[in-house]
Amino acid sequence: MLYFLNDYSEGAHEKVLQHLIDTNMEQLPGYGTDHYCEEAKEKIKKACGCEDAEVFLLTGGTQTNQIVIDTMLQPYEGVVAAQTGHVSTHEAGAIEFTGHKVLTLPEKNGKINAADLKNLVETFYGDENHEHMVFPGLVYISHPTEYGTLYTKKELTEISAVCREYKLPLFMDGARLIYGLVGKETDVTLQDIAKLCDVFYIGGTKAGALCGEAVVFTGNSMPKHFLTRVKQHGALLAKGRLTGVQFDALFTDDLYLEIGKNAIETAAVLKAGLKEKGYTFYIDSPTNQQFVVLENRKMEELKKDVQFSFWEKKDDTHTVVRFATSWATRMEDVEKLLSLL
Amino acid sequence: MLYFLNDYSEGAHEKVLQHLIDTNMEQLPGYGTDHYCEEAKEKIKKACGCEDAEVFLLTGGTQTNQIVIDTMLQPYEGVVAAQTGHVSTHEAGAIEFTGHKVLTLPEKNGKINAADLKNLVETFYGDENHEHMVFPGLVYISHPTEYGTLYTKKELTEISAVCREYKLPLFMDGARLIYGLVGKETDVTLQDIAKLCDVFYIGGTKAGALCGEAVVFTGNSMPKHFLTRVKQHGALLAKGRLTGVQFDALFTDDLYLEIGKNAIETAAVLKAGLKEKGYTFYIDSPTNQQFVVLENRKMEELKKDVQFSFWEKKDDTHTVVRFATSWATRMEDVEKLLSLL
Amino acid sequence: MLYFLNDYSEGAHEKVLQHLIDTNMEQLPGYGTDHYCEEAKEKIKKACGCEDAEVFLLTGGTQTNQIVIDTMLQPYEGVVAAQTGHVSTHEAGAIEFTGHKVLTLPEKNGKINAADLKNLVETFYGDENHEHMVFPGLVYISHPTEYGTLYTKKELTEISAVCREYKLPLFMDGARLIYGLVGKETDVTLQDIAKLCDVFYIGGTKAGALCGEAVVFTGNSMPKHFLTRVKQHGALLAKGRLTGVQFDALFTDDLYLEIGKNAIETAAVLKAGLKEKGYTFYIDSPTNQQFVVLENRKMEELKKDVQFSFWEKKDDTHTVVRFATSWATRMEDVEKLLSLL
Amino acid sequence: MLYFLNDYSEGAHEKVLQHLIDTNMEQLPGYGTDHYCEEAKEKIKKACGCEDAEVFLLTGGTQTNQIVIDTMLQPYEGVVAAQTGHVSTHEAGAIEFTGHKVLTLPEKNGKINAADLKNLVETFYGDENHEHMVFPGLVYISHPTEYGTLYTKKELTEISAVCREYKLPLFMDGARLIYGLVGKETDVTLQDIAKLCDVFYIGGTKAGALCGEAVVFTGNSMPKHFLTRVKQHGALLAKGRLTGVQFDALFTDDLYLEIGKNAIETAAVLKAGLKEKGYTFYIDSPTNQQFVVLENRKMEELKKDVQFSFWEKKDDTHTVVRFATSWATRMEDVEKLLSLL
Repeated sequence: MLYFLNDYSEGAHEKVLQHLIDTNMEQLPGYGTDHYCEEAKEKIKKACGCEDAEVFLLTGGTQTNQIVIDTMLQPYEGVVAAQTGHVSTHEAGAIEFTGHKVLTLPEKNGKINAADLKNLVETFYGDENHEHMVFPGLVYISHPTEYGTLYTKKELTEISAVCREYKLPLFMDGARLIYGLVGKETDVTLQDIAKLCDVFYIGGTKAGALCGEAVVFTGNSMPKHFLTRVKQHGALLAKGRLTGVQFDALFTDDLYLEIGKNAIETAAVLKAGLKEKGYTFYIDSPTNQQFVVLENRKMEELKKDVQFSFWEKKDDTHTVVRFATSWATRMEDVEKLLSLL
Repeated sequence: MLYFLNDYSEGAHEKVLQHLIDTNMEQLPGYGTDHYCEEAKEKIKKACGCEDAEVFLLTGGTQTNQIVIDTMLQPYEGVVAAQTGHVSTHEAGAIEFTGHKVLTLPEKNGKINAADLKNLVETFYGDENHEHMVFPGLVYISHPTEYGTLYTKKELTEISAVCREYKLPLFMDGARLIYGLVGKETDVTLQDIAKLCDVFYIGGTKAGALCGEAVVFTGNSMPKHFLTRVKQHGALLAKGRLTGVQFDALFTDDLYLEIGKNAIETAAVLKAGLKEKGYTFYIDSPTNQQFVVLENRKMEELKKDVQFSFWEKKDDTHTVVRFATSWATRMEDVEKLLSLL
Repeated sequence: MLYFLNDYSEGAHEKVLQHLIDTNMEQLPGYGTDHYCEEAKEKIKKACGCEDAEVFLLTGGTQTNQIVIDTMLQPYEGVVAAQTGHVSTHEAGAIEFTGHKVLTLPEKNGKINAADLKNLVETFYGDENHEHMVFPGLVYISHPTEYGTLYTKKELTEISAVCREYKLPLFMDGARLIYGLVGKETDVTLQDIAKLCDVFYIGGTKAGALCGEAVVFTGNSMPKHFLTRVKQHGALLAKGRLTGVQFDALFTDDLYLEIGKNAIETAAVLKAGLKEKGYTFYIDSPTNQQFVVLENRKMEELKKDVQFSFWEKKDDTHTVVRFATSWATRMEDVEKLLSLL
Repeated sequence: MLYFLNDYSEGAHEKVLQHLIDTNMEQLPGYGTDHYCEEAKEKIKKACGCEDAEVFLLTGGTQTNQIVIDTMLQPYEGVVAAQTGHVSTHEAGAIEFTGHKVLTLPEKNGKINAADLKNLVETFYGDENHEHMVFPGLVYISHPTEYGTLYTKKELTEISAVCREYKLPLFMDGARLIYGLVGKETDVTLQDIAKLCDVFYIGGTKAGALCGEAVVFTGNSMPKHFLTRVKQHGALLAKGRLTGVQFDALFTDDLYLEIGKNAIETAAVLKAGLKEKGYTFYIDSPTNQQFVVLENRKMEELKKDVQFSFWEKKDDTHTVVRFATSWATRMEDVEKLLSLL
């Protein structure tokens, strides 16, 4: 069985696992105060080109979105996000659970744009009754988006400018960030992100770790008593080393980039092969998620040999499916998949 | 440096780690639907002698307390706990964060008793104005308690009887449960707990896992759509295998009991040695946490060679400190510690 | 100055006020346990043709929406509402404050329809990942809507049928309900509403009371310990008589219908007059709110003599404004307004 | 039947009611923006000797406690209160509903003291693990307390000093404040309160209004966007005039003091009469609530002619009951009551 179901199907990248093994019997203090957490944070700040950032390691994506959004917002504020944003649709109401509304913007290829954002904010403040409404308090974007697409540097810069004009912090969900950094088509670097966003996270779970997301607060944006709030959310690990050691490995010798490259290269071969075979794409994705239209009969046949994700019904005879590659995808499996298609 | 700081200083027990290594490259579905989660759950149910239980794997202790309490309670209900209960004091308000009050009972050696519980419930229902008050909706106990003490089977049975009389589910925080199951002085088994409690958890974080707590719902007590609520709390791991594999190892060939025994045996030697040397105990603990009164000068001296926890000031010249053993404690280190005392 | 700003500009209808005066020095028990509350509830149940309903008196509209929605929903559920619903837009996030998402449907003239509702529910349950999403748990409609429009009996029946098919309670926001009951164009009676909805409220604040909304739970839908939950929301009046006496007056000799009629009759004259003068309507409203397009210059001129509401900008030279009538509107003022237009 | 059940048994004081009648048909803007609200606020600020205060009118006591505490606290903070404080016991968990813990202090005659408060705060900050605990963020006191007792100026000054030392705002629940201002035994004035507290409220519901509590924020302590947060709590009245007109009346020609005096004078006569007859008091209250020990047989007999409150069981043959006077209590009724005792 070939496995293109998602990018979190295996355990940890071998170097990450090895670091866990090597450090296993070291006796370390708890709650993220150990030296591996410290070193991981330093390496991340260096990679971001942002020495004065503050980094906090959390466990999973929805948890991170919930905690960052809840702690960055005032109680009377909501978060602005694309209608297709993960926080808008697939987090079981985790944002509302903490008392905040998700204010949605239209999306194109999973992305919002600066003009729509500006319009939302100005419409809000222009409304005589805005004190009876939810204040926009933070802007959420994902990069890559839920559709595998990427913001260009120009797009990000424009969104960031609107955010700064209206004093709205900009938050980037980087659950799959490493897959957005290494492609040939992107002009956005980690350093750009650190400059343009007030807070973002670098996903580990979907990028070679067993679990873990590294939140980077730039420019003194870390909320007061953040550790206590993480604890209050039930998200503070006693063995903080678990995420510390893994991120230490991911940011040693640029392992995160190496991991990203394998995913992008295998995805590119898959994409090129599919194009050649005349398949239609649901969306043009430059990253590790490829959304392809399959004839239903073909899809059923493929299921016998390949695991992939149902995305949505296209019409009565066609379906959109997703093939995901990752750090663990072998090129030979891509070739096998192509030969089956 | 000798390390008696706590029971979560090392990584994972070697067999737990080995299972993670062995299964690392298996491609598994996410969110706890993999077969290791399934097998772990089956083994846990068997160990509990409770085939119709439902088991759910979470990441940490405060998270588990928060989710179990929030989902078992109606919105107008609070949880009854000892004044010294972890949920009452050291969880940064995680229970109140989800809208529920902690209704406190007096404690003796960290334990509540059936009579006080009955009195609280009857006083509540006897009050003409109880509709203006928080309804008791769940009873929380920890076993071992925060002071390392244990309920006897008789005490547990009495508390459980009051709970059932008033239809209050009984919830046991078992963050250190394995250390409570293996001592010579206890008459409470895992099967007893499964019979007397409506929900409890078996801690992994403090018992040889990198992270993970296994919640056991007995007698159809699992709240509806529990997975969705876990997701809503930000606590659903994408790589559910991380906890599944670890609990699979812990419950294979009774590894959890073996782990517990090492902690109890080393603690017993430490306790006996301290007694012999004439040290005073703050509390008589039969488990892996030993609370000892040290002369302040002695304490300072000891700090040079040993890591241990400050517990509380006793008087101007004495301090209560805690020495914790674990699955990882070596008997030779206990002997070295005793020689220093 | 003529006053068409809204339907809550005056104090109480004279008969409501008189009842407050007449009963003022009676000594009554608190928290809604007095006999006026009791009598008001009986009269309301009779008017609804629903003897087994339960009625609870609250203070204001947003409060009522928040409490009904929060108490009718399970924690993992959200409320379905039109994008233009009051709970979606103008309640400062009061629904999200209690942890629930507002799941929006498209609207036409402020109304949702059965087909869109059915589609939302079926799409939800058809999604493989719906356990990672917010469950639809209640359907919210307003009648009259925020645009003064009314559901027909057929429309309501269809929506109610979808709700019952999927076991979704149907909740009607009746902040202006009395204005929807008395027009010539409506075929929906209070009894119909009691049959088709699981819970609804009859607004007092906008209908001749100083404050107060009467929530009617039909068919055993009242949440358990509702009084405690109202208290927990900070919404239980010590002097429950304040709302009890007022609703007792409103439902004595059908005062509520009389009040509604004056608003509708004055609005009808205004509407006919405006039509005759060739004004364009933003929406065709059969109730007490009339939305009219004014030339900006005309609007500015009118402001000198008349108070009305800005609704939205139509184009560079035109604006939509709202004229609201009420129980207190005098026909002579309508005539004066028409002469100014 | 004589009525000493509580201080909110009647409707409104005649002057308050008359003002409602006189202003009833005035057309006023909504949501507290009318000129009666404005005038009431100005008069209150003047009475408090605090021109730069901000005043906000709410509806009821629990609502006010909930909103003030929730909006003054950071999310990681709790409110410090006496174990017997209203927020600790009789508000159905309204504080926890908004996510905050009530941190309790021991009480004496319903009062906390500066030393215990200082101790709580220092113990908190002295704890190495305080980041895992709830931060004290606000101090709540009631004056008169739930037992009718009063703080002396010295006590208040000391508590206020501790609060300021640790930057903890001091909040006074003044649901019955007017009854605490007019007695012969108190040395605390409204101006003192405005100087020593950061926020307090002057109760209307128990002091001659149909409903309404006036929150006074001194020294720029009003939380940002307070109106929006009140709306979000479901507590913003559309007809803000309802509370505005009533407080305008209460603070015209010192009506609030006149109202307070009647309650205190009738209570004083009752207290003196009871003392003379040899009754034992449960607590020595200088205000309008008198707590008396009655022989059970006597209590049952009295119930035929008098309404009063059960407070608590004293022993098998005696009960503590409460007699409450108010602005509406007639001296002749006190005399009748005394003749029955």
